[in-house]
Amino acid sequence: MSDTALAVHRAFYDAVETGDVDLMASLWVDHPRVSCVHPGAAPLRGTSAVLRSWTVLMAQVSYIQFFLTDVDVTTLPIGAQEPTTAVIVCTENILSGEGMSSPEAFAGGKALCTSILVRDLSGGRTAGDWKFWSRHASPIAEMRLETD
Amino acid sequence: MSDTALAVHRAFYDAVETGDVDLMASLWVDHPRVSCVHPGAAPLRGTSAVLRSWTVLMAQVSYIQFFLTDVDVTTLPIGAQEPTTAVIVCTENILSGEGMSSPEAFAGGKALCTSILVRDLSGGRTAGDWKFWSRHASPIAEMRLETD
Repeated sequence: MSDTALAVHRAFYDAVETGDVDLMASLWVDHPRVSCVHPGAAPLRGTSAVLRSWTVLMAQVSYIQFFLTDVDVTTLPIGAQEPTTAVIVCTENILSGEGMSSPEAFAGGKALCTSILVRDLSGGRTAGDWKFWSRHASPIAEMRLETD
Repeated sequence: MSDTALAVHRAFYDAVETGDVDLMASLWVDHPRVSCVHPGAAPLRGTSAVLRSWTVLMAQVSYIQFFLTDVDVTTLPIGAQEPTTAVIVCTENILSGEGMSSPEAFAGGKALCTSILVRDLSGGRTAGDWKFWSRHASPIAEMRLETD
């Protein structure tokens, strides 16, 4: 179960890396209360605002790649056979070909991200699919132990 | 339902403001996969590590007060009568009496926080209580429109 949530989580980064706006749009719940916090920024609310910010970011970078480390996924309710929510915390190590100067830009090469995905169990066309409900990314201070 | 999640969310800030370690401990799920991201820091995992960080922070400040703005709460699954998860996004406007220089310190007077609370529906002593499962706070850049 957490594997499929992780696959959607990975597809999100694939969408950013390949600039695939349609793929990105398919990965989010369509709801006015969806939220997305870009590093250092105020939260965006609603799917259209969130998708617009990613479209702008994708249009601004010619090359971006995410190396994810310390990916930690938990599903909720705790211990449920049919979880409805997945919380994925990971470190994004970002390699980009050019500077990003928009308000949506990443503040650094390293970010910490908490993603909340939900699964629709109510039936219908996309029932059972994990989708993004919320994302919160923030700059992470470099560790002194690392050699850059 | 979202009212009770918000009450627990408010109790969290009360605990920090009054330095009430026991209250703080009562508000978190006791689980090794609980997570907490302090502004600019790597994630802490597990309830004991999370509570230790808050105890350290509370010991370091003689005065701290949080003015929350733009508090947005949603419960999941979407539309459920018995939600099991609450996502609360808010802006923390932090007033503190002294500098905080620890690695757990707040990076500024303003932070953006996403909190994930869960409710145990499986029965038992604390069934139905909302508790913190995850918290992700990040520094927020000041808007140019504001007058400081």
